[in-house]
Amino acid sequence: MSNYSITPLEGGLANVNGFYCDAVNVGMRPDASQGDVAFIRSETLCNVNAVFTTNRFQAAPIKHFQRYEEGFQTNFVLVNAKNANAMTGEKGIEDIYTIMSALSSKIEVVNPVMSSTGVIGYRLPVEKITSAFGKFDFYAKNSDAAARAIMTTDSFKKELACRVTLEDGTHFHLAAICKGAGMINPAMATMLCFVITDADVPKADMDALIKSAADRSFNRISVDGDTSTNDTVMLLANGNTGNYNKEAFSEALNEMLFKLAMMILRDGEGANKLVAFEVTGAASNEEAERAARALSNSLLVKTALFGEDPNWGRIASTIGASGITCDDTTLTIHYDDLLIYSDTHRELDKEREKQAYAIMKQEAFAVRCDLGIGEGSFTAYGCDLSYEYVKINAEYRT
Amino acid sequence: MSNYSITPLEGGLANVNGFYCDAVNVGMRPDASQGDVAFIRSETLCNVNAVFTTNRFQAAPIKHFQRYEEGFQTNFVLVNAKNANAMTGEKGIEDIYTIMSALSSKIEVVNPVMSSTGVIGYRLPVEKITSAFGKFDFYAKNSDAAARAIMTTDSFKKELACRVTLEDGTHFHLAAICKGAGMINPAMATMLCFVITDADVPKADMDALIKSAADRSFNRISVDGDTSTNDTVMLLANGNTGNYNKEAFSEALNEMLFKLAMMILRDGEGANKLVAFEVTGAASNEEAERAARALSNSLLVKTALFGEDPNWGRIASTIGASGITCDDTTLTIHYDDLLIYSDTHRELDKEREKQAYAIMKQEAFAVRCDLGIGEGSFTAYGCDLSYEYVKINAEYRT
Repeated sequence: MSNYSITPLEGGLANVNGFYCDAVNVGMRPDASQGDVAFIRSETLCNVNAVFTTNRFQAAPIKHFQRYEEGFQTNFVLVNAKNANAMTGEKGIEDIYTIMSALSSKIEVVNPVMSSTGVIGYRLPVEKITSAFGKFDFYAKNSDAAARAIMTTDSFKKELACRVTLEDGTHFHLAAICKGAGMINPAMATMLCFVITDADVPKADMDALIKSAADRSFNRISVDGDTSTNDTVMLLANGNTGNYNKEAFSEALNEMLFKLAMMILRDGEGANKLVAFEVTGAASNEEAERAARALSNSLLVKTALFGEDPNWGRIASTIGASGITCDDTTLTIHYDDLLIYSDTHRELDKEREKQAYAIMKQEAFAVRCDLGIGEGSFTAYGCDLSYEYVKINAEYRT
Repeated sequence: MSNYSITPLEGGLANVNGFYCDAVNVGMRPDASQGDVAFIRSETLCNVNAVFTTNRFQAAPIKHFQRYEEGFQTNFVLVNAKNANAMTGEKGIEDIYTIMSALSSKIEVVNPVMSSTGVIGYRLPVEKITSAFGKFDFYAKNSDAAARAIMTTDSFKKELACRVTLEDGTHFHLAAICKGAGMINPAMATMLCFVITDADVPKADMDALIKSAADRSFNRISVDGDTSTNDTVMLLANGNTGNYNKEAFSEALNEMLFKLAMMILRDGEGANKLVAFEVTGAASNEEAERAARALSNSLLVKTALFGEDPNWGRIASTIGASGITCDDTTLTIHYDDLLIYSDTHRELDKEREKQAYAIMKQEAFAVRCDLGIGEGSFTAYGCDLSYEYVKINAEYRT
């Protein structure tokens, strides 16, 4: 096992050598102090890999990305908010070609890619977006502006960076900006995440690294069980430092995406609590996963969390409804370390109920269900459901 | 094809010959003017069949029912609210035997069955429940009291009756009481439904009749995607009239359960709108069903309905996320008869948007999605999600 250290850094994308970023407001977002179009640019070509939504109606920018040859490299990512360019058909892809053609007259771009988030079903305002190219500072390192420009219902920007120092004293950086607050579900979410690194990541490692990190983070969180047309986690590696260690890079990437996923969950539309649903003792990992995801998606569980009601009946009922092998005589439920249910403790006495209330009042806690049957385990992460969620989503478009 | 007529009747269970019912308050429900224990009794033995929840943690009364021999007959159903007798283990079943033993000292019962709804995880208050037996009028036909006694978060009682008149002038009756408002999902719901009939339904027909009627009604509605431990649809046939015609009975039963299912949906916790999600042109009926159920369960669709926002993007995105075969160039979406989306009408112009608002302001309307791929179709029924749902479910137990 190699020796290395991971040090968090302030300043987001600006930490990574050879990358530039900026954002401007072109009038899609009413508040002109916040950008609505952003870019991330590398001075050299990057290896690039992405994990996209499993939604069958993938947005135009995802289809556009996939039309490049397998293993292509790029030096430019353009991102816009307020319009998802989804369900726009072939014209939505043509619009991207038009935009990229305008871009290439301003700066040298190779295989530029695009990413969009916002309302579904409307063509991109091509002229507005291309107007950004006269306003961008293509040599800026304005991570804050880029992180804020990609926000939709997010209540805070999501930006992280770290330095990884290897045993031999060499180092490299990773940084990411990310957006997402609602419509979050396993199998991705309306979330965009762009990770850049100056590590010299071999093309051969890229795909497995990004997939594995997404599986352990964004694919384990649920705000509302919906899966959007635009979800994207993208990794860009320009090799600027010439340094790399797979194990260290993988740990840094996993840690970064997990932290971003928890930030999304904390920003879940109207959410106040972050809950880990740990299922153990299942007949298989798949069954554990099914139960854990069912818990993190259940409206009745989520509203009970919001009400801070230690109603373990809804937990048990949701496990039972998930269709997995289970048995009420071997099942145990804990909130953090407090026993809430077992075969011999089926009714919650006043003392334990009081302790359960105290646990549920925390901003984060664990609901731990041991099925007592096999060795399968899985943890999913969810949040409560408040009035605010309904308000945000009833009023989102209008 | 036989000739028959189905006539709706006032008065619920009281219309059916040879059945009695009553309800009393034994102190489980604070409001003493509403019962919390009810019974349905037949003066002769009934064929009985039931469809139960698919939740793996079936409540004690369901397990108790299933311990009788296949094809058993009964003359007594006892129902209580406020306590589900679920996750109570073997002791929960013992409690039922204790209760039924006390009952048998008051009135002659054969294979009595029980049904419960309410909070999960607490033993039944046996003494309170058996105190009802001294208060019941076992010869009453008090359908209103019984229908109201089984309510939980229901805002109105659900009770229907009809007379079926056959070609030869003979007739029989069906009547039902039903409860359910939230936690409603395909694969049943926290709902109880008791159908009684004086038709002479052969034992051999019972199971298929009740299953088919439940599949076309309760199994197509969704309030919140949860499936309870106690769901029960029970059919009791005492043959009192000696009359029967399978086709006529089946139609009357289907019609009755469908009406009750729509009543539950209209009473969906905090719901204001009833929406039919009609999916056609799918590769198979199974795929149509998957998409229709995904639509009726989607939080984003439900909140958009509440907001009366004709945001077809959420409809399309939910279909895409359901994992079925679909293509945005063959898909069309209508709200009632108004075209909302097609390959050539991707953007909603102001005029159609105005018409769409008008449709969404109705108490009931249809979202019709034609995938344009095959012949598969399915219709699921759902409702909107309001602040009120969150409030009811955050505060339900406490």
